[in-house]
Amino acid sequence: MTPNEPGPLERNPIAWLTLGDVLREHRLARPDGIAAVCGDVRYSWTELDRRVDGLAGGLAAVGIGAGDRILWLGQNCHRLLELLLAAGRLGAACCPANWRQSPEELAFVLDDLEPSVVVWQDAEIGERVAKTRAGSTAAATAHWIRHDDPDAAGGAGRTGGTGGADASASRRVGGYEALLGAGPAPAEAVDPEAPVLILYTAAFDGRPNGALLPQRALLAQGFAGTALGLASADDVYLNSGPLFHVGTFKATLATFFAGGTNVFTPRVDAEELCRLVSVHRCTGAFLQPPTVDAMVEANRDGRFDLSSLRAKPGPPGWNAMVTVDDRPLPRSGYGQTELAGVVTYVDPARPGRGTAGRPGPLARVEIVGPGGDVLPPGAVGEIVVRGPMVMTGYHRRPELSTARRRGGWHHTGDLGRRESDGSLTFVGPMTRIIKSAAENVYPAEVEACLRSHPAVADAAVIGVPDPAWGQSVKAIVVPAADADDLTAAALIAHCRDRIASYKKPRIVEFVESLPRRGGAVDYGALDEQHGGGGYPGTG
Amino acid sequence: MTPNEPGPLERNPIAWLTLGDVLREHRLARPDGIAAVCGDVRYSWTELDRRVDGLAGGLAAVGIGAGDRILWLGQNCHRLLELLLAAGRLGAACCPANWRQSPEELAFVLDDLEPSVVVWQDAEIGERVAKTRAGSTAAATAHWIRHDDPDAAGGAGRTGGTGGADASASRRVGGYEALLGAGPAPAEAVDPEAPVLILYTAAFDGRPNGALLPQRALLAQGFAGTALGLASADDVYLNSGPLFHVGTFKATLATFFAGGTNVFTPRVDAEELCRLVSVHRCTGAFLQPPTVDAMVEANRDGRFDLSSLRAKPGPPGWNAMVTVDDRPLPRSGYGQTELAGVVTYVDPARPGRGTAGRPGPLARVEIVGPGGDVLPPGAVGEIVVRGPMVMTGYHRRPELSTARRRGGWHHTGDLGRRESDGSLTFVGPMTRIIKSAAENVYPAEVEACLRSHPAVADAAVIGVPDPAWGQSVKAIVVPAADADDLTAAALIAHCRDRIASYKKPRIVEFVESLPRRGGAVDYGALDEQHGGGGYPGTG
Repeated sequence: MTPNEPGPLERNPIAWLTLGDVLREHRLARPDGIAAVCGDVRYSWTELDRRVDGLAGGLAAVGIGAGDRILWLGQNCHRLLELLLAAGRLGAACCPANWRQSPEELAFVLDDLEPSVVVWQDAEIGERVAKTRAGSTAAATAHWIRHDDPDAAGGAGRTGGTGGADASASRRVGGYEALLGAGPAPAEAVDPEAPVLILYTAAFDGRPNGALLPQRALLAQGFAGTALGLASADDVYLNSGPLFHVGTFKATLATFFAGGTNVFTPRVDAEELCRLVSVHRCTGAFLQPPTVDAMVEANRDGRFDLSSLRAKPGPPGWNAMVTVDDRPLPRSGYGQTELAGVVTYVDPARPGRGTAGRPGPLARVEIVGPGGDVLPPGAVGEIVVRGPMVMTGYHRRPELSTARRRGGWHHTGDLGRRESDGSLTFVGPMTRIIKSAAENVYPAEVEACLRSHPAVADAAVIGVPDPAWGQSVKAIVVPAADADDLTAAALIAHCRDRIASYKKPRIVEFVESLPRRGGAVDYGALDEQHGGGGYPGTG
Repeated sequence: MTPNEPGPLERNPIAWLTLGDVLREHRLARPDGIAAVCGDVRYSWTELDRRVDGLAGGLAAVGIGAGDRILWLGQNCHRLLELLLAAGRLGAACCPANWRQSPEELAFVLDDLEPSVVVWQDAEIGERVAKTRAGSTAAATAHWIRHDDPDAAGGAGRTGGTGGADASASRRVGGYEALLGAGPAPAEAVDPEAPVLILYTAAFDGRPNGALLPQRALLAQGFAGTALGLASADDVYLNSGPLFHVGTFKATLATFFAGGTNVFTPRVDAEELCRLVSVHRCTGAFLQPPTVDAMVEANRDGRFDLSSLRAKPGPPGWNAMVTVDDRPLPRSGYGQTELAGVVTYVDPARPGRGTAGRPGPLARVEIVGPGGDVLPPGAVGEIVVRGPMVMTGYHRRPELSTARRRGGWHHTGDLGRRESDGSLTFVGPMTRIIKSAAENVYPAEVEACLRSHPAVADAAVIGVPDPAWGQSVKAIVVPAADADDLTAAALIAHCRDRIASYKKPRIVEFVESLPRRGGAVDYGALDEQHGGGGYPGTG
C-alpha cells in the first residue's frame, strides 16, 4: 500500500472489529501457529489469512459484494471457515445448509436464500446436490463452485461430478482452489450490523427462517467463550459436530477467536475421530453419547492415543482412554440460533435454583409479559435478550423480524422464569398462548407441571372455546403404566398447588398416546380430536 | 411500567449494552451482593441501582441530559461511581478532576469542560475548590453540589463549607443526597458513541486535553479485565489509587463489570488502608512501593489481618502479612488514557521478545510510518490501534481529534515495534521527528539506543539544520560517573550496530546534565543550547 492511496484502513470505523481483524491479529501474534487442519492440509494463521484474502479477491472478481449470499452445500471442511471469513471481508454472508436434509428441503433453502454463489461438494452428497439443483428455480442464477474438485487448480467452466448434469443451466466459474488466485484482495467492508452468517432455524409456521447473524454477534460469542475459559490458544478442537448448527459452530468460532486450532472432519466416523485425536492431539470435540460408545469400541485395542482429549466421564473404558475433564468450567445454559449460541451459563462455582444458570458477561436478560412489561423474579413469561449476540432479523421475513425485536428486546419465543437468586429457568417453547379471561396461559408451563406428577407419562394442553372466559384450559394426559387410580381431580389439584389457579386445567382427558409429528406434539390434531379452538389472534 | 407506555426498553438498541445494563443485570443476578463500600456506607447491587436511578432522576430534574458534563471535584468516593453510572443513564459525561492540581490548573479544566454540574468536596480540599471556583468563568453557569454536606438530605440553596464564599455567583440546588429523591428515573439514553467519562491527559502543547470515553470503551476494558482473570465477582477491590487516572480507574471498572465489590477511600493513608483491608477482606488494591513500605510499618505489630490481600512480593515483613500473588496472570503492557486503559498484555504463559506483550482479545494493533503505511515486524513506527476501547476524540479539540483518528486508526503518538514473534515493544513517546534526507528519525528511538550503552547515564537527541540533508542527528549525552574513556566515535559505532545507519548521531556532545522541566527533558532548552532546529513542519 502506498502512503497516499486510501487503503482498507481508511474505510474502517475505529471501534468495530471484524472476523478479519481477529484473523489478521492472530497472523501477527502467532504467524506460525496452526489455524486449520482438514484432511491432508494444515494451514498456519499466515496461510489462512492469505487464502481468505485470495478467496475474497476471487469472489469479488465474479461479482460478489456487500449483501450477497453464499450457500455452502457440503459437509464439515476448513473451506466453510474460509468462506465465512471471506464473506466477512466482502460484506457478504455465508449460509451452511443442513446437508442431511432432503433435496426438497434443500431446494426450499436455496430458493429462499437466492445465493449468488453455491459452493458444493461431490463426495458422498453429490447426488443430493444434483437433485436439489434440479428442484430449485434460484439454482440458475447462482455460480456453482465445486469445492472438492480433484482438478483443484483448474480453469473456468468445470463443475464436474454428479451434480454436473444440469450445469448448463447456471453460470460457471472455476473450482474453489482456482478462485483463490482470481483477483486481488478487495478492501474490507465493515458494517457491524451486516449479516455474515445465516443459519436456518425456527420453523414456526412449518418453513424454516434464516437467522441473520452479524460479525458483532459472532465476535461476542467467540469472546464470551474465551472469557469463560471454554477456548484458548492452546486448544485443538475437533469439529465433529455439524457446522450448520449453531450449537456446534459456536465452539469452532470460539477456537478461532482464541487463536486455537480447528481440525475439520466431514462427518462422524468413530475410527476416523480416534485417528484425528491421536494424530493432531485434539483437546476437545463435540461428542454425543453414541459416538463415545463407538469410539470406545473402535479403540478397544488401544491403538489410538486419546489422552490429549479432555472429555466428560463416559462408559466403561472411556475414562481410561481420555483425560477426564474435571475443570469447574461454566456449562451452556439457555441459547438459540438467533443468539448465535448461548446467553446463560451454569457455573459450578455459583450454583442457582434456575436450571439454565446466569447470563454471561455480555447479555441482558429479562422476563416479560405479553404487553412487554418486565415481570418480577418468580413469574413465568417470555425470555427477552439484549446484547451484541442478538441477530439482526430473519432473511426476507420483515414482519416476523419486526415482531421479534419489538420494544427494543429480542423476543426469544421461549418461556422462562428468573429465580430470586438471579438464575434463569427455561420453561419451554412458547408455541401458543391460551387466553382465559384476561389471563395468558402458556401450554408449555402447564404441561411441565402435569409431567412433574409421578403418575403422568405424557401430557399436552390445549385451549377450548368457553362462552364465559374466551377459552378454558384442557389437558390431554397419558397416564404412566402403573397409574391405575389417577383421576382428573387429583391432577387439577396437583396443578393448583404449583401454578397460578387460572392456569390449571378445567378439564382432563386421558388417552393412550399423544399425536406427534417428527417427535413434537401435533397440536393441530389434538385440537381437532379434543375440541380445541378460540385462540387469541384467530378471530 | 404499563404495557402500552413506551418505557426505556422501547428506546434501547438491542445490540448495544450500557454501564446501566451491567448494573441492572448484577442487581438481578446477585441482588444482595455488595457493590460499593465507602466510609460507613455499604450498598448492595439493588441499593446501588436504586441510588443511580434516583441520582439520574435528580440530575434530570435540574436539567442535565444528553451531551452535558458533570465535573467531580473530590477525592475517591462511591459517589463518583454513582455519578458515572447516572451520567450514562442520561447520555451525559462525568469528569473526575485531578484534585491534587493547583487552583489555576483546576480552573483551566473547569473552563475547558464547561460543566452543567460540579459535584465538590469540602473535606481536605474545600479551600482549593473555593479558589478554583473564584478563578473560573464557567463556575457561574454550573450547579454546585457539595457531596459531603453533613446536612445530606437538606433542601435547596445550600452549598455550605469553605467553598460557599462565592456561591451567590452560581445556580443552587440541594446537596448530593437530596438530589437522589428529586425526580423520577428518566428513560435510559443509549448511544454507544456518546462519551460517558472524560479524563484530562495528553498535554501536547502544554495544556491538557479531555479524552472522551464512550460507554463501549469502558465496557470493552471492563470485559477484557474480566476475561483475562484480572477481576471476578469474588473480588473486593480497594480503590487506593487516584480515580482521575485511567491506570487506577480501570481496576474499579473491571471490578464493577465483574460484579465484585469496590471499597473506596479518599486518599492513601497506610494505616487506614490496613484497616480497610482487614475489615472488608479486600483481595486487591493499587499499591505503590512507598505505600507498601508504610503499610508494613503501620502493621508491624500485626494488629491488622491483611491475609485476604493478594499482592506482589514486597519488602521484609510484607510477604508474611499478605497472600503473595503467584497466579500467572497477564500484566498490563501498553496503554494510554485515550484507550481507556491498556491494549497489550504481558502473559507469563506466552513470553515474547517485545517488552509490552501482545494485544488483548479486543484490540487491533499496527505499526505505521508517517504516511500511514503499515510497517513490517521489526520496524519502528507509530503505534496505531482499532477496537471498542478507543476514545471518540478530545473535548472541544476538533482538529486534534481528527488528526489522531486519521486513516481509520487511533494514532497513539507513541513509537513501537512489532517483533517477529508478534509481541510489541514500546519505544517511547513520539514527541517530535527529525527529518534527515527522506528519512524520519524518532529521537526516542535513538535515545533508547544511546541509553542502552553501559557508559551512558542519560541522553537526548535533537536535530540540527544541515544544508545537505535538511537536518542531522545530534546527541547530547551525560556519561556515567565512571565512564572516563567514553568517546563520541564509540557511541556512534554503538548506534550503527543497533539501529538504521541514518538514525545514528552524526555529532555527540557530552554534558553534565540535561535540562529538564517537571521530570521531562526540555527539548526547547536543548535546541537553544546546542543549535537544534529545522524540524519538519517548522518551515
